[in-house]
Amino acid sequence: MGKIKRINHVAILVEDIEETLHFWRDALGLELAHVEDVPDQEAVVAFFPVGEAEVELVKPTTEDSGISRYLEKRGPGVHHICFEVDDIDACLEKLKSKEIRLINEQAVVGTGGKKIAFIHPESTHGVLIELYELTAEEPEIRLARARSLADRALLQSQVAAAGMVGFLRALRSEAER
Amino acid sequence: MGKIKRINHVAILVEDIEETLHFWRDALGLELAHVEDVPDQEAVVAFFPVGEAEVELVKPTTEDSGISRYLEKRGPGVHHICFEVDDIDACLEKLKSKEIRLINEQAVVGTGGKKIAFIHPESTHGVLIELYELTAEEPEIRLARARSLADRALLQSQVAAAGMVGFLRALRSEAER
Repeated sequence: MGKIKRINHVAILVEDIEETLHFWRDALGLELAHVEDVPDQEAVVAFFPVGEAEVELVKPTTEDSGISRYLEKRGPGVHHICFEVDDIDACLEKLKSKEIRLINEQAVVGTGGKKIAFIHPESTHGVLIELYELTAEEPEIRLARARSLADRALLQSQVAAAGMVGFLRALRSEAER
Repeated sequence: MGKIKRINHVAILVEDIEETLHFWRDALGLELAHVEDVPDQEAVVAFFPVGEAEVELVKPTTEDSGISRYLEKRGPGVHHICFEVDDIDACLEKLKSKEIRLINEQAVVGTGGKKIAFIHPESTHGVLIELYELTAEEPEIRLARARSLADRALLQSQVAAAGMVGFLRALRSEAER
């Protein structure tokens, strides 16, 4: 247990998502799966699936976050590599036993239900590494979030439709006067 | 055609392969597939398969190569991402048509028979990207190289064995005197 399964994503810091789409989507031909505002990470993230992994373009949305300062200091480019593991707690224990410095001593459960932890670049010779474990809850939480978003979108479209009907009725009664 | 299939590898510049094994192999638990001297790249490369991709640790072996200067300037860390594509020539044409600056205007055929080309980080917002196409010749060339290495190893062991036999004979004739 505590085995690395695959590269889950490579995260790339960008100054502007729109500007970088010209390269990643239009020229390189990757498919843009979705763009998501991730308040937890103080970032907007664009996801491009590539085989079993993803390229993630990350644009900071605040000025005092770690990624914002990193972008300021080092310029745009690769920020971290995320590996999916089968058992993140076992991995963290093993890393600690080998005296590897961790940013997260314990796995953090993010929105969406996934468990993640970062390893400090001091112990990896300059590479920021994220570990990620897909939990049994994650697909359910994602589904619930998608449903809630869909419900909200439906509601908004209903509100908009109701408004439109009201507008058309008012217009007709204007015309009928 | 000209489609990105997967991340082939993430290349990480290191100052010393041995030192970094503690993290990548012993603590993180990746399997070290092999270490190879790659004179073309003026580097020694350690290969760690991860799912359908690889992590490659790259240690410059000369002092005036591009990677050596990069390491000097930016310190150890991620150097480039390599994507496998189905048709590298089609990719390069498409990139040129979108006015993306290329380091290699035409694909380069490396030792081992693979076709590669680098995209200039100026057009990718700071990420050095390699494209790679597996050619029909590559497995054959790799096999031939492996055979030639095996032949050489066999030869060396025969030479060593011959030397040993000579030594033992000399020893026996010493003893029989």
